[in-house]
Amino acid sequence: MLRLTIFGSSHGPGIGCVLDGVPAGIDVDRDDVQRELELRKPSGALGTPRVEEDRVEILAGVMDGRSTGAPVVLFIANKDTDSSKYEKFRATPRPGHADLTALRKYGETVDLRGGGQFSGRMTAPLVAAGAIAKEMLRGLNVQIAAYTQRLGSVVDDQERTFKEVRRQARENPVRSADPTLALDMIHEIMEAKHEGDSVGGVVRCLVVGLPMGVGEPFFDSLEGEVAKMMFSIPGVKGIEFGAGFKAASMRGSEHNDSFQVVDGEVSTITNNAGGVLGGLSNGMPLDIKVAFKPTASIAIEQRTIDLDRMEDTTIKVEGRHDPCIVPRAVVVVEAATALVLADLCLRGDFIA
Amino acid sequence: MLRLTIFGSSHGPGIGCVLDGVPAGIDVDRDDVQRELELRKPSGALGTPRVEEDRVEILAGVMDGRSTGAPVVLFIANKDTDSSKYEKFRATPRPGHADLTALRKYGETVDLRGGGQFSGRMTAPLVAAGAIAKEMLRGLNVQIAAYTQRLGSVVDDQERTFKEVRRQARENPVRSADPTLALDMIHEIMEAKHEGDSVGGVVRCLVVGLPMGVGEPFFDSLEGEVAKMMFSIPGVKGIEFGAGFKAASMRGSEHNDSFQVVDGEVSTITNNAGGVLGGLSNGMPLDIKVAFKPTASIAIEQRTIDLDRMEDTTIKVEGRHDPCIVPRAVVVVEAATALVLADLCLRGDFIA
Amino acid sequence: MLRLTIFGSSHGPGIGCVLDGVPAGIDVDRDDVQRELELRKPSGALGTPRVEEDRVEILAGVMDGRSTGAPVVLFIANKDTDSSKYEKFRATPRPGHADLTALRKYGETVDLRGGGQFSGRMTAPLVAAGAIAKEMLRGLNVQIAAYTQRLGSVVDDQERTFKEVRRQARENPVRSADPTLALDMIHEIMEAKHEGDSVGGVVRCLVVGLPMGVGEPFFDSLEGEVAKMMFSIPGVKGIEFGAGFKAASMRGSEHNDSFQVVDGEVSTITNNAGGVLGGLSNGMPLDIKVAFKPTASIAIEQRTIDLDRMEDTTIKVEGRHDPCIVPRAVVVVEAATALVLADLCLRGDFIA
Amino acid sequence: MLRLTIFGSSHGPGIGCVLDGVPAGIDVDRDDVQRELELRKPSGALGTPRVEEDRVEILAGVMDGRSTGAPVVLFIANKDTDSSKYEKFRATPRPGHADLTALRKYGETVDLRGGGQFSGRMTAPLVAAGAIAKEMLRGLNVQIAAYTQRLGSVVDDQERTFKEVRRQARENPVRSADPTLALDMIHEIMEAKHEGDSVGGVVRCLVVGLPMGVGEPFFDSLEGEVAKMMFSIPGVKGIEFGAGFKAASMRGSEHNDSFQVVDGEVSTITNNAGGVLGGLSNGMPLDIKVAFKPTASIAIEQRTIDLDRMEDTTIKVEGRHDPCIVPRAVVVVEAATALVLADLCLRGDFIA
Repeated sequence: MLRLTIFGSSHGPGIGCVLDGVPAGIDVDRDDVQRELELRKPSGALGTPRVEEDRVEILAGVMDGRSTGAPVVLFIANKDTDSSKYEKFRATPRPGHADLTALRKYGETVDLRGGGQFSGRMTAPLVAAGAIAKEMLRGLNVQIAAYTQRLGSVVDDQERTFKEVRRQARENPVRSADPTLALDMIHEIMEAKHEGDSVGGVVRCLVVGLPMGVGEPFFDSLEGEVAKMMFSIPGVKGIEFGAGFKAASMRGSEHNDSFQVVDGEVSTITNNAGGVLGGLSNGMPLDIKVAFKPTASIAIEQRTIDLDRMEDTTIKVEGRHDPCIVPRAVVVVEAATALVLADLCLRGDFIA
Repeated sequence: MLRLTIFGSSHGPGIGCVLDGVPAGIDVDRDDVQRELELRKPSGALGTPRVEEDRVEILAGVMDGRSTGAPVVLFIANKDTDSSKYEKFRATPRPGHADLTALRKYGETVDLRGGGQFSGRMTAPLVAAGAIAKEMLRGLNVQIAAYTQRLGSVVDDQERTFKEVRRQARENPVRSADPTLALDMIHEIMEAKHEGDSVGGVVRCLVVGLPMGVGEPFFDSLEGEVAKMMFSIPGVKGIEFGAGFKAASMRGSEHNDSFQVVDGEVSTITNNAGGVLGGLSNGMPLDIKVAFKPTASIAIEQRTIDLDRMEDTTIKVEGRHDPCIVPRAVVVVEAATALVLADLCLRGDFIA
Repeated sequence: MLRLTIFGSSHGPGIGCVLDGVPAGIDVDRDDVQRELELRKPSGALGTPRVEEDRVEILAGVMDGRSTGAPVVLFIANKDTDSSKYEKFRATPRPGHADLTALRKYGETVDLRGGGQFSGRMTAPLVAAGAIAKEMLRGLNVQIAAYTQRLGSVVDDQERTFKEVRRQARENPVRSADPTLALDMIHEIMEAKHEGDSVGGVVRCLVVGLPMGVGEPFFDSLEGEVAKMMFSIPGVKGIEFGAGFKAASMRGSEHNDSFQVVDGEVSTITNNAGGVLGGLSNGMPLDIKVAFKPTASIAIEQRTIDLDRMEDTTIKVEGRHDPCIVPRAVVVVEAATALVLADLCLRGDFIA
Repeated sequence: MLRLTIFGSSHGPGIGCVLDGVPAGIDVDRDDVQRELELRKPSGALGTPRVEEDRVEILAGVMDGRSTGAPVVLFIANKDTDSSKYEKFRATPRPGHADLTALRKYGETVDLRGGGQFSGRMTAPLVAAGAIAKEMLRGLNVQIAAYTQRLGSVVDDQERTFKEVRRQARENPVRSADPTLALDMIHEIMEAKHEGDSVGGVVRCLVVGLPMGVGEPFFDSLEGEVAKMMFSIPGVKGIEFGAGFKAASMRGSEHNDSFQVVDGEVSTITNNAGGVLGGLSNGMPLDIKVAFKPTASIAIEQRTIDLDRMEDTTIKVEGRHDPCIVPRAVVVVEAATALVLADLCLRGDFIA
């Protein structure tokens, strides 16, 4: 019931989105949306030198600071575009990018500049829309917080409470839930950058306050809808809920979360299910892990092909790129989660 | 463009599906559909004692063995139903099941018998519909084969070719790509069964012949659509493509798949991407891994609660259940993959 | 949110439908559904000699007489099929039928027997599904009643109250709101039948009790959704709301419905709007008129072409057909209206 | 497959639309789009004094004058807004407008200014999107032309050829297909205006070149999709195809269009079907008539109610309004038709 359309491309006039289905009366504050967008920006020495102001404008759907019930349109003008380097990728496709497949699918008119519609920059409107979805969920007391659970070889293997994540993750540029690990992660990125290489990682997203019964199985299960949205984020290669892949090697007696009554409230003692049973939220915290591959654009010379001559060649991708997108992806994962949950809460009549 | 509706429940008159959007002229042979269904059945001593004949009927959409362009309807009558044991789960919900969440969401009229609409039995119509999707893909020379890559502690860590999987996986009851590992897996299941416990596992699905450009990003990416469908299969807790979660700890220089020209054809040297870039198939084999949790229904006594008295209690789930659903899930994963690919091939005009 | 799929064809194993999105707990009584179906049957000497028992079965979605929240599946087996006469229509298409266009669109595998998926018989599952939609609306006190407002040259130009329609229309075989006009209409049909010809007509449908605000403009307006559904009924050529086409020749001062307060309730003095303003119900009775063309199948010899020889020829359509489908269409129009209103009431949260 | 979202409101920052599903490589010329918009503007003394520049901008989806395959976004900034007069309509709703129903549905935050999302101004983005749809159809040689077939008491009862309409309708401000009738229609409008009143009318839209088989029955019939879209245009109260409501009083032998072979091509001798049979185009010209009510906003004093005091009162609507929107609606009807046909041609694979 909440329909999101992302539009624009990295090097056109701008990017934006239409969020249709927002109920009338939701607070929509441009500054709140802007604040979320700031969290997506590259952070100083860690990120790409491309610095977009990313100033969001509300083009429609909001009057006097509140949604009117009509589609909400957000727009971010592109400023700092330099597309000169992209033309050659039509002939020599970049490994790890969709240059070649996009050319084959959409033909020569496809916009490859800055990755075109496959650019990581398309996640900016996702974050902007997510800010509105978060506001919709706030009325239900549903809260979302994500952090960098793994960055290259640095793994945060501690169980983290929601409060801890909420308090720590926005305090350091790598969005770690632990200040000490944050330093290790920064080091990992700097090292990769120095070598002209990149690193991947895992973002973990926790949601508290979600009522029981969110999700619309058979097909529109809670996990299914979240997973589909996550794979729209460039670079995502895997997703798991709760024990996830570890569940494959567990026994049922170990994996099943036993019910308990505490102070008259039902809960489970463990949370191997990650907050979902039978495609429905079960009242426990939602626990999602999303795997990101290392950034495909690296300075190191790579093998590729020359499509005109149909022969092997090499390429050095000289654009301005992030050695690691994981820290910037943390707020994107939160936004993606918020959008799916707001939609399912509307569908299940949890939001009026 | 291919819309699937699953209907029925484990203990009602029967189960079935409507597959809308099948082009006219596709061969639909009842016996072919039946053969796929046989692969989903429990296998002798390894599985549940419930033995359904699972005879599929074609109620509509097929004339003289070919689809007419109208919705195809398949129906499987329930025969061997014994729902007497399910009523008590309304008061004492089973750990690992959606009894409690379903009651809260749908109210007292919900059908919990045999898991109701959350029953693993609902995957039978999925397999039946998948048989038709496979037939649709056959015209494109797209082929799908899955196998049990992990079963509890038994891991198949060999790279497997499509042909190998195709040849081996249907030759043993656990759907292993290796006859020796098959024995270990059988042992693993028998052991869990003996202890009244259950085990999980990982199904790996390979697809060859998929043309470049299948997928409809931004939101309807190839990975996103596959992932959403997989999470409709009861027990799935994670999914990854290609290197998947391993990609999180790789460097870009290691993860990027270099292009090469071999005999005038473009391919990549490695396949860490698992056949998908930018939400589109890239012409390499699709490589999907799906994690299944251990069966929730176990004979061992578990802690739960008494909802009437709101106090802790215990439960022994006495129904007839599988100690491991992974081998039976192999053909379900194939069917789910086929349905998504047939839909995306229709949407991308790969199928006329 | 209420998704209806119609399946089957006039001369296959049977016809039916899947109604997905019915909330749990709605009373679904097979006999009630059957009663609605009886109203769609041809009436003695007035209709086609084809007599189908049209016994409806509930295959899924209902337990102990109430909906479970899962898709409801209804099935009607075909009994009295005689398709021998249809094969020749592939070579000599019937005027007024979709034989030729269907062949061009779906190819040679299309099922033309009895009109295939274009058969009027496909409205039986629509009526069955409509019975459930009516039950959903009953909880809101929304009531629907339709009648034959015109039949060939016989016009009922009286303003009719809902109660009058409710009381009269089911009492005579032509569904007239007036017993005297009913006789004229019967005469009109008998005359056309005698001449081997057919007649058209207009069905008027009134809805009372609809709350204000039903409809989801911009695109999913109340009129738009109703109109789309009506044009799925074979033979419909026009639809209008309230003053409809007459509004085109009216002045604004005459057409605008003035508001009034009566006993503390807001209403309009006239109802030229037919109960809809700005795509939303306005609390006044919904007033819909639907034009039906005369039955295309007539016994009189008609000009057509021989597709094999590509030359002019003639055809006499010898099947068993209705000289007038309008009386049978009355309950179909009610069902179509009920399905759209139930869907829009779900979408607008008027039904929980 | 072509999804249109209209956004903005009459008195916010601007209005616009997102057209998703436009294939890559379609010519999109801003000036062409602008030219269509000019046809929607009020014409001198005949229309509203509100004069919007209505300059359209392409925000996304087009590169170097051609669509990229990504969503196309068009935006028209509002300039001449004067919303001071609208606040009082919250307390004293205007007859013929959705003020009251919108307030009840969306609550106090709804934007009533200039009609908010129910404003006729929302048809400007529809026309802009329609210009792109027309370009998509041009490749198939499908052409669309509409004209004012009735305006108040002035009726154009001549059969009109497509060429005639094409040549004449844009040559006079009332979009008549006949220069003499145009003068009568102008007179009709001036008279209504002089009296502070308004008039309605009928727009007839013809489409030539449409291939056989466009439409996706059962539910997404050609008539159904066109009808649904038309009812999104403010003021539409009825729609008919071919003989339409007249068909209700015809005999089958008179209404059926006989087939003929002329120069090796199949056609029908008459076109009572209006180009559609069984929900599919039949190769004959599409013939659509759309009834518009007279403009609801009139200067004459009208009866209404005071919602605060719940008592009867009167209102004079002083805004700047059209005495007749029919001439401006002609290009809107063309655009609506183009959008539906482009979508159905994509769905039926008539457009690659």
